Amino acid sequence: MVLVDARNPLNIGAAARAMSNFGFSRLRVVNPYDVAFQGARSAVGAAPVLASAEEYKTVAEAVADCSLVVGTTAIGHRDLQHSIQRLEAGAPVIRAHIASGNCALLFGSEKFGLSNEDMSHCHWLMHIPTRDEHTSMNLGQAVAVCLYELSRDPKALAKPGKGIAASAAEAERITETLLIALRASGYPKLNSSQSFQSAVRRLVRRLRLQQGDAEFLLGMLRQMVWKLSKNEESED
Amino acid sequence: MVLVDARNPLNIGAAARAMSNFGFSRLRVVNPYDVAFQGARSAVGAAPVLASAEEYKTVAEAVADCSLVVGTTAIGHRDLQHSIQRLEAGAPVIRAHIASGNCALLFGSEKFGLSNEDMSHCHWLMHIPTRDEHTSMNLGQAVAVCLYELSRDPKALAKPGKGIAASAAEAERITETLLIALRASGYPKLNSSQSFQSAVRRLVRRLRLQQGDAEFLLGMLRQMVWKLSKNEESED
Repeated sequence: MVLVDARNPLNIGAAARAMSNFGFSRLRVVNPYDVAFQGARSAVGAAPVLASAEEYKTVAEAVADCSLVVGTTAIGHRDLQHSIQRLEAGAPVIRAHIASGNCALLFGSEKFGLSNEDMSHCHWLMHIPTRDEHTSMNLGQAVAVCLYELSRDPKALAKPGKGIAASAAEAERITETLLIALRASGYPKLNSSQSFQSAVRRLVRRLRLQQGDAEFLLGMLRQMVWKLSKNEESED
Repeated sequence: MVLVDARNPLNIGAAARAMSNFGFSRLRVVNPYDVAFQGARSAVGAAPVLASAEEYKTVAEAVADCSLVVGTTAIGHRDLQHSIQRLEAGAPVIRAHIASGNCALLFGSEKFGLSNEDMSHCHWLMHIPTRDEHTSMNLGQAVAVCLYELSRDPKALAKPGKGIAASAAEAERITETLLIALRASGYPKLNSSQSFQSAVRRLVRRLRLQQGDAEFLLGMLRQMVWKLSKNEESED
């Protein structure tokens, strides 16, 4: 990660924090605004990355030991001479390269981005796909998004929900207890019999209850049935 | 996007800016620190999103019209009662839901994240995969990464490089001109003949020159050949 001409200490600190979050450790800064760099060194949650950050005077020196140099840009109205890739498409190329050699990912200043001279050190450019009407991202956020994509696991699968689905027997116990509670409460539609019972049964199935929740709900219903029957007795 | 108990105006502003970058427009804030919210309203590059931001007193009111509520968390040491998904796996579920109904994505305060009470309004939780040693992300960066993933195009393909690859004839012209220039310069290995010429030919092919670059390079070489032959003449 190479920050060129960064001016705001909060952004340098934020970039370092994102590096720490996503497991990138080598930060280089080119020509930082001195006060900013010193300010950033004290930023929260990024201490080790910032402590070992290296300072360079030129882009050429900062990327000298890298065999792939990729610049980031917001694609404004500049006529870019480089090939430019969307982040999703560029990241796999960078990941593949990292396996065998160093890659420098360049970010320009908050206001102007990378200069044409900075870009001429790059093999190609990468941009984060944003809305055409608002392509300019905050530096710290742009860094976080790029590093997230680089460490993203395309094979990450959805985890199944916690717990085990309730069995049909459990669902049926709930259905029966609910019908008893409704009967005891004088629920009006109850007399329409079979079709209503089926509607309640389907409702309970649609809840897709988990085992623990089925027991939880059954306990509540039984308590209500008990109280309802007790009230019935006292009314008699 | 729902920010709960946000305290830092810079973070609210950054969240709004990322929303604008990635094309999300409806920001809701629950119980914001008043000064922070007023401060954020003047943040750069996020004006329309912040101007239309809605303020709520409770999470329940803020998510009332949403049919899917997803909370974000850094998974610390808390014992979470919810099912939790990695961002890569959760995002497609959210995208699918948005097609038919509203979804609220909740972010907690900078210091404490979402409370257990806040989380109880959620259908499930989502976390950004980070290094185990440093899971806590800056709020503005976490928002940017989540919205990037939500608007990410998994089918984005690498674009071919600009321009057209140079033809074999062009590569051969460069090879020949380079050999002439080397001969004129008295390059030592030149006499070892055929195998050296083949080595130069292979070198030129490995450059994978584009058409424009092939012409550019040929022009340079021809100029050198011309100057070398002229010097030769004057030496005679």
